[in-house]
Amino acid sequence: MSFGTASRKVVPRVPLRPGEGDKDHLTSFEGLSALSLDALSSVAYGPEAIVLVLVAAGTSALRLTLPITLAIAGLLAVLVVSYCQVIAVHPDGGGAYAVGKKDLGAKVSLLAAASLVVDYVLTVAVSLAAGAASMASAFPSLRHHLLAMCLIGLVVITAVNLWGIAESARALMLPMVLFISAIFGVIVVGLMRSHPAALVGSAQPVHISEALGAILILKAFSAGCSALTGIEAIANGVPTFREPRARRAQRTELMLGGLLGAMLIGLSVLINREHVAPREGVTVLAQLTAGSFGTGWAYYATNIAITLVLALAANTSFGGLPVLMSLLAKDNRLPHLFGLRAERPVYRFGVVVLALLSAVLLIAVDAVTNRLIPLYAIGVFTGFTISQTGLVRHWYGERSPRWMLRAALNGTGAALTATATIVFIVSKFTSGAWVVLLTVPALMLLFSRVQDYYQAVGLELGLGRIPYRPLAAKSLVIVPVGDISKVTAHALHAALSLGDDVIAVSVHPTADQSAEFRARWDEWNPGVRLDTLESPDRSLVHPIVDYVRQAEQGNRQIAVLIPEVEPRRWRYRILQNQRGLILATVLRAITDVVVCTIPYRLTVR
Amino acid sequence: MSFGTASRKVVPRVPLRPGEGDKDHLTSFEGLSALSLDALSSVAYGPEAIVLVLVAAGTSALRLTLPITLAIAGLLAVLVVSYCQVIAVHPDGGGAYAVGKKDLGAKVSLLAAASLVVDYVLTVAVSLAAGAASMASAFPSLRHHLLAMCLIGLVVITAVNLWGIAESARALMLPMVLFISAIFGVIVVGLMRSHPAALVGSAQPVHISEALGAILILKAFSAGCSALTGIEAIANGVPTFREPRARRAQRTELMLGGLLGAMLIGLSVLINREHVAPREGVTVLAQLTAGSFGTGWAYYATNIAITLVLALAANTSFGGLPVLMSLLAKDNRLPHLFGLRAERPVYRFGVVVLALLSAVLLIAVDAVTNRLIPLYAIGVFTGFTISQTGLVRHWYGERSPRWMLRAALNGTGAALTATATIVFIVSKFTSGAWVVLLTVPALMLLFSRVQDYYQAVGLELGLGRIPYRPLAAKSLVIVPVGDISKVTAHALHAALSLGDDVIAVSVHPTADQSAEFRARWDEWNPGVRLDTLESPDRSLVHPIVDYVRQAEQGNRQIAVLIPEVEPRRWRYRILQNQRGLILATVLRAITDVVVCTIPYRLTVR
Repeated sequence: MSFGTASRKVVPRVPLRPGEGDKDHLTSFEGLSALSLDALSSVAYGPEAIVLVLVAAGTSALRLTLPITLAIAGLLAVLVVSYCQVIAVHPDGGGAYAVGKKDLGAKVSLLAAASLVVDYVLTVAVSLAAGAASMASAFPSLRHHLLAMCLIGLVVITAVNLWGIAESARALMLPMVLFISAIFGVIVVGLMRSHPAALVGSAQPVHISEALGAILILKAFSAGCSALTGIEAIANGVPTFREPRARRAQRTELMLGGLLGAMLIGLSVLINREHVAPREGVTVLAQLTAGSFGTGWAYYATNIAITLVLALAANTSFGGLPVLMSLLAKDNRLPHLFGLRAERPVYRFGVVVLALLSAVLLIAVDAVTNRLIPLYAIGVFTGFTISQTGLVRHWYGERSPRWMLRAALNGTGAALTATATIVFIVSKFTSGAWVVLLTVPALMLLFSRVQDYYQAVGLELGLGRIPYRPLAAKSLVIVPVGDISKVTAHALHAALSLGDDVIAVSVHPTADQSAEFRARWDEWNPGVRLDTLESPDRSLVHPIVDYVRQAEQGNRQIAVLIPEVEPRRWRYRILQNQRGLILATVLRAITDVVVCTIPYRLTVR
Repeated sequence: MSFGTASRKVVPRVPLRPGEGDKDHLTSFEGLSALSLDALSSVAYGPEAIVLVLVAAGTSALRLTLPITLAIAGLLAVLVVSYCQVIAVHPDGGGAYAVGKKDLGAKVSLLAAASLVVDYVLTVAVSLAAGAASMASAFPSLRHHLLAMCLIGLVVITAVNLWGIAESARALMLPMVLFISAIFGVIVVGLMRSHPAALVGSAQPVHISEALGAILILKAFSAGCSALTGIEAIANGVPTFREPRARRAQRTELMLGGLLGAMLIGLSVLINREHVAPREGVTVLAQLTAGSFGTGWAYYATNIAITLVLALAANTSFGGLPVLMSLLAKDNRLPHLFGLRAERPVYRFGVVVLALLSAVLLIAVDAVTNRLIPLYAIGVFTGFTISQTGLVRHWYGERSPRWMLRAALNGTGAALTATATIVFIVSKFTSGAWVVLLTVPALMLLFSRVQDYYQAVGLELGLGRIPYRPLAAKSLVIVPVGDISKVTAHALHAALSLGDDVIAVSVHPTADQSAEFRARWDEWNPGVRLDTLESPDRSLVHPIVDYVRQAEQGNRQIAVLIPEVEPRRWRYRILQNQRGLILATVLRAITDVVVCTIPYRLTVR
């Protein structure tokens, strides 16, 4: 928790997130780049997830990709409309957490919060894993180093966030436009060709392991829904928009819905036309890219753009999780510490923890995107379900005109997303979903225990009630001294200014040494009483602590003033102040006195 | 650096070393167990070291073991007499470091200090490695787990020292007596037998790789001198003896010399008689034990006693190194921190660092005793050489009667030990001695740089000169407040007692929230002025720091008083005070104000 050296005398600040500066609020289009990269980049793994489920029933089952995608697009439409309503009803942001808190009570909001925390971690992991797969599609020699690529990417993103380069919505615009152009390019060129320009990857033998039935279709639908992750981010970020906030945010949400829906449908039409099946070493999206553009420079450029956008999507979690955690801290559900996200050490702590958790996940699944997607989707879809159920309650409570229609729409959405959540949990329980099913309740328990604690503390401290009126008392300032120097004089000056009485205390191993020190003190004659203590076992701390405890018996306000010599270079700190540090720690732990430190800054070297 | 919880209200103390308590000073015989285990246990590896060198010239060369041992015993006699003189001349202890400082100047004393530090680490490593070898001689199944045994032993010793069980000289007496009895038992029984009772271990093929010449004999002599390590410890520990200190310490030194000499000569006579050569998996001492006692219970008991004493020898370093480091700290050659060895965190820090360094050494040599011995002996013999050279200078300066004789004796000793040191360095340079040859100068450089730093600081602080006379000034105490509660009232009470003026400062994101807080403040009316600050970017620290810097412009003594809510359980600390901690850290780093904290102890849970 060091804040830079005295010589700089500048406190570094935490970089603002897009839209956080005063004059820096977002337009609708900027909002798209600042808040939607996560959602848009889902097209890199959503359609692939459908294909990977269906292929279990043989390549002929893959013809169902398009109808399933159309159903997902329908759900997308419902969700986009819902979130536009969420934006209108909760213009302060907060998404599922805010909706849950307002309309569905404490328990549900805890569930929403826990799901969101899990999702922020998973966004990082999924985006990096998908990015690595995309990169390896372009450069086959990287195929066996997916995990290493993910971890290197994670280190880079973490470093960037620790360093604290301010993201700007405008800087994110270019990669987003490139990405969208590339995807639509793939779709349009692909549709114009009569047959694929090139085949990449190597064919995989197909093992038919499941029958094509309602269950498999439901699984494919659920898996494909991973393409919808991220569409809640705009509703969470309404306060970062320029006025009229809600209107702009809604416009962004609609843009996102239109773009995402068009990309998903377009890609699945292509998958259908080109009879794409999973191939070794390349992603489905890379196959489509090769089919449209061949394997020349455009193939490389598209894959690199996709990787870049996925990496930026991973990066958005590093901005988003701290905001959620500060909201939770404000509601007494996380240590108040996390409410201080504008303070650099808190910010850095959060960055490192998020990075470590993501690294653990990536290592656990060996950087295979498809193994993360069910975990990811459970959390996201829990949030969707909560948001929409909350809206149903809201409409029911409001009974405004047409409330039945609205409630029916959101109710249908809630039923669909709840179904998808249950399918994920049931079908993937043994292959990882249990982790989420343990983590989410554990987080909920943590949040509610923290809340209970703060409530009990608030009661004890009399928060919200008028406390007693403080009165001044006589004061005694005790100054532990080790030698006679300018530091001693500096400390005594401060002590004399602060205390009604001042006593200097020194500790010596023998009576002779005490007497010698007293003689030098008298020669100096600083106008302060000196008490000498003897400590045959050479401990300096215990005699002073005992002395302070004795002084505490009276009615005076006791303060202990400890001078600290501050070297100019940080590495010299080990050479100074350790005695004071230990003394201050012990005094804080076992006495009730005021413990003061006063710096004396060295200029040497 | 936590010192226990408030509820205990007790400061744990660091255990005393043998002889450190008031009434606990050592008798001559107690001194033997407290200070000589390291030296006595050297018989476990000294004779073996000779055998391992000589066997390079074939088994017939082993007949030289006895004459070489006699030469070593002669050197031992010289050293014992020297150290009796050191004790007389330097009754305050300190050994080679004290002698060097007094008679040979700063550079030489730095060399002595660096050698001693290296030796404390090596004592731990060598004793553990030899102990593991002894244990594996008794239990062959352990033969391939020497390193693991060493590391487990190290963990146990470290834990015992962290826990802080007080060693007592009397508790060490029993293992010492057992050990000495066992060794003399081996010698006496062995001499009475006509041929060995049993052979243990498996024969090793002998490769003749060196000619039997002066060089090899010199090497064997030097290697055997490792049996003399530890005899300096008594001279270092004179202050722990009962009065008359010097007399008692000298008597202990003579006892040690007699016992050690007799054991060494006895064992080498046995080696000669039984034609002992190195055998796979057992130590030379274990072979002699089996030759005398057979392989029944007495064989196991002897090996276990040897292991135990070696482990206790390793343990002595954990007591000795801190004493040396506090001497160095007192001389400004190490951070003053180490002068505080009576304080528990400092003591624990030292224990852990010593354990880690020993672990690194053990891992580096794979727990093979014989690879550590040259490194060990270089340091020890450097110390011997310095002590004796210092005495020569002392006698020369004193010119008391018979000074020439004394100087000649010590001069011969110094020449012999210097020769041994050089033989070690030259013959073992590539196989590890280079580490010592790098470490010792590096430590010397560190010591002298620390000394230079403290000297410059002392000059700047005017140490030893009379400083200016401190005068009282007007004071202003600034109290950052976050809410209105008993904590606030408690802090304002202390602030009013300490300051001539008191101002409470609060930070709010918006003007509305400021106004609302001011209204509540006015309702309370604590008699303290409130300044509200606005911070649109939600940072709490920066506005307060800026405010304090403004206040610093005047002539008043500024103090910032930060209330700290102290939970009863340590793990709840994360829930409290983080804002205050960050604020205090920033204020200490970049302002010159007095930073005060006042605890408010919670009773909840």
